[in-house]
Amino acid sequence: MADKVTPQSEDYSRWYTDIVQMAELADYAPVRGCMIIRPYGYALWENIRDGLDWRFKATGHQNAYFPLFIPLSYIQKEADHVQGFSPQLAVVTHGGGQELEEPLVVRPTSETIINDSFSKWIQSYRDLPLLINQWANVVRWEMRTRLFLRTTEFLWQEGHTAHATAEEAQEEARRMLEVYADFAENDAAIPVLSGRKSASERFAGAVESLSIEAMMGNGWALQAGTSHFLGQNFAKVFGTQFLNENNELEYVWQTSWGVSTRMVGAIIMVHGDDQGLRLPPRLAPIQVVIVPIWKSDEQRAQVLQVVERIREDLAGVRLHLDDRDSLTPGWKFNDWEMRGVPLRIEIGPRDVAKEQVVLARRDLDKVKETAPLAELAQRVPELLDEIQQSLFQQALDFRQERSSEPKDYQEFSRAVEIGFAWAWWCGSEECEAKVKEDTKATIRVIPFEQPEGGGRCIVCGAEAQEQAVFSRAY
Amino acid sequence: MADKVTPQSEDYSRWYTDIVQMAELADYAPVRGCMIIRPYGYALWENIRDGLDWRFKATGHQNAYFPLFIPLSYIQKEADHVQGFSPQLAVVTHGGGQELEEPLVVRPTSETIINDSFSKWIQSYRDLPLLINQWANVVRWEMRTRLFLRTTEFLWQEGHTAHATAEEAQEEARRMLEVYADFAENDAAIPVLSGRKSASERFAGAVESLSIEAMMGNGWALQAGTSHFLGQNFAKVFGTQFLNENNELEYVWQTSWGVSTRMVGAIIMVHGDDQGLRLPPRLAPIQVVIVPIWKSDEQRAQVLQVVERIREDLAGVRLHLDDRDSLTPGWKFNDWEMRGVPLRIEIGPRDVAKEQVVLARRDLDKVKETAPLAELAQRVPELLDEIQQSLFQQALDFRQERSSEPKDYQEFSRAVEIGFAWAWWCGSEECEAKVKEDTKATIRVIPFEQPEGGGRCIVCGAEAQEQAVFSRAY
Repeated sequence: MADKVTPQSEDYSRWYTDIVQMAELADYAPVRGCMIIRPYGYALWENIRDGLDWRFKATGHQNAYFPLFIPLSYIQKEADHVQGFSPQLAVVTHGGGQELEEPLVVRPTSETIINDSFSKWIQSYRDLPLLINQWANVVRWEMRTRLFLRTTEFLWQEGHTAHATAEEAQEEARRMLEVYADFAENDAAIPVLSGRKSASERFAGAVESLSIEAMMGNGWALQAGTSHFLGQNFAKVFGTQFLNENNELEYVWQTSWGVSTRMVGAIIMVHGDDQGLRLPPRLAPIQVVIVPIWKSDEQRAQVLQVVERIREDLAGVRLHLDDRDSLTPGWKFNDWEMRGVPLRIEIGPRDVAKEQVVLARRDLDKVKETAPLAELAQRVPELLDEIQQSLFQQALDFRQERSSEPKDYQEFSRAVEIGFAWAWWCGSEECEAKVKEDTKATIRVIPFEQPEGGGRCIVCGAEAQEQAVFSRAY
Repeated sequence: MADKVTPQSEDYSRWYTDIVQMAELADYAPVRGCMIIRPYGYALWENIRDGLDWRFKATGHQNAYFPLFIPLSYIQKEADHVQGFSPQLAVVTHGGGQELEEPLVVRPTSETIINDSFSKWIQSYRDLPLLINQWANVVRWEMRTRLFLRTTEFLWQEGHTAHATAEEAQEEARRMLEVYADFAENDAAIPVLSGRKSASERFAGAVESLSIEAMMGNGWALQAGTSHFLGQNFAKVFGTQFLNENNELEYVWQTSWGVSTRMVGAIIMVHGDDQGLRLPPRLAPIQVVIVPIWKSDEQRAQVLQVVERIREDLAGVRLHLDDRDSLTPGWKFNDWEMRGVPLRIEIGPRDVAKEQVVLARRDLDKVKETAPLAELAQRVPELLDEIQQSLFQQALDFRQERSSEPKDYQEFSRAVEIGFAWAWWCGSEECEAKVKEDTKATIRVIPFEQPEGGGRCIVCGAEAQEQAVFSRAY
């Protein structure tokens, strides 16, 4: 930690890159646009994965695995899908020393290859709903990349489901968005707005796209999860049909939904500060770090004896003892602050004598308390809960401060420079395009929760039924 | 389950394919040589993954993730490595609509790309040992494929470690082989032989390869896990160096080790029978299936009430209730036998009246017992342990029956037709090649545990220091 992080206020983008690299979350790979997820970053991703995975299983989904390679002809079957993805494809042309008869695409997403299986697995209404999820790597060729936020290869989960009716599929798409919102708010401590995307921001091949959007530390939005109602678009081109109860053939109705390693980027940008990462306790690879302090071997033995007691008392907590001899306590404090560990326990000879420790919270600057050893088993889990809540509340307060409902287009233009603007929108693509042209802001989401009544479009003044949330976005 | 499995004795290879497809473990993909891992097969793989993952973490390893794509020039740096892998490479030549300046290889294994990172992460002896594992998909172009056993894309974990001395690296390679053997024997109920590979069977780029070998139900061997001592081969070509305590630059010593979805194939072939799969309880996605029996709605209600009590009593067990109305109990029995569920609970109105259930074990043919409801919480976990042990013992007995120490080459040739032949080997590649030419058998492993003294090579009669285990292999 010899180097300092670039302050957010000086250069937010440099601040982000500094954090990712100095907290040892990820590195750029020698292959353009790819990333190496380092152990600390991967441990965070594992906790994200586990937090989502149990929620998927609790809502009746099963994991499976489909091939990395997709025949080019499959991608081309659905017209919107191929148009959306073809500029981003990585193509395998040679295998086993031979040129392939048909090029293979490295999956950018798996709707097509999965429909090929669904069309074989689904025969009758008894096979529905079919609720599948896959944890996988995907590849989308990117020209401008940023670690976690936009990389050529990334890790994600993609849910794919088939249903007997449009209503059931729409309910599923909504349910999974709620699962994402629940995870984001309760595990990642990130407040999100849930709603529909406008047509221009829809997934290539979807009838409707839903998303959760979070505000980053510079007021920009980041799409943290999406859930799509696919209608029968893929079913029709892949012949995914079922016999209904009246013995008639029908096409299935489908959804797909995904969360990726972008979520790591969201956590960094929502919670991080100029000292480094701040991780929500539920996802932190290390929830509590113990920094012992001693000056003699005798003190060392005394302190470590107490550390053992603490370990036993905190058996259910993800605990790390930093007993590196070559580093000072102050250096360690900075190091673990950089890595965002929610709570630090400091313990030296004087603490041992008093049967206490010092507790330092990462979420509040310079706030320390002493706690009797005997109370740690109760106090530490309590504090972790408080920190979890406090990170969420700080993010929510920040979003409120940076959100507004501008009265006119001039106010609106200023509002999207600093955060989210809630504004009536007439629904026309022209108005949406004008905003982007003028301000670089886009419609992030048309929230499910709308004010009563209607209003006038912030751009053209025409009658509008819905408010949209506009902002700059990653 | 309308169709029957081809009996093992009729066609072992067809039997295997039938089981994989009828138990819904996997399907062939539309892309040549690739497979689709279906939910039941993937749930089994998840349990394998978890059983290995905690062992890796308990031995100090951390997970990370490295890119799918490797520059072709990287693969070419280590001479043996490129020679071994180049016939199997899948090559990306186009990305984002452009031809790439340098083709990218889809990783067949990650020694090269990982050494690129290690060479940056490792500065001094304080950074060693570096103990990394990755869960990933890899691609090796295959001409003849079999589900789980040999597929173009497969899932695996690959461990990669760097050490300050050759001894430490050799210990690590041995330690991880022991982790694999422990997993195989205790979780997968598969007895394995541990030892060295002969030079001809070594990993491309390794100084020494270790493996665990298991006997399948037809007497052939399957390599179920490998661990390699890489020496400084990769370190030298990637410049992976560290400053030792005397401030001198040295190359690191490395290992790599892997277990893949082949393990699923091993489980099928070691334990399966003509009724279908037989899964070891520790890995079975469903440990206990409840098949309720009723003829009226009143009986249905009574039975389901008791089922609820059983669920509560067996909260720690992976339990599934098969309450499908459209199927008979007999059909369900066959279905769950096909899927290898270790224990079945049958419960009908008469059982309800007697406060008991019928327990049917999958590991022993036609063995049923009745058990009082009140004892299930104790009896079921006991039985699952017994089944775990019994599957291991059956596999061990089978291996003993099919293993021998032939006296001459004629006996030897017959021995490798049915199983494992332990034989003295002089160490020459000529003798090894002659065996392969004559019998199609190869040296599977030179076991760590050797008889005392020496003997005469089974092929040429020359003095030999070690016994090797020869057999046909997958």
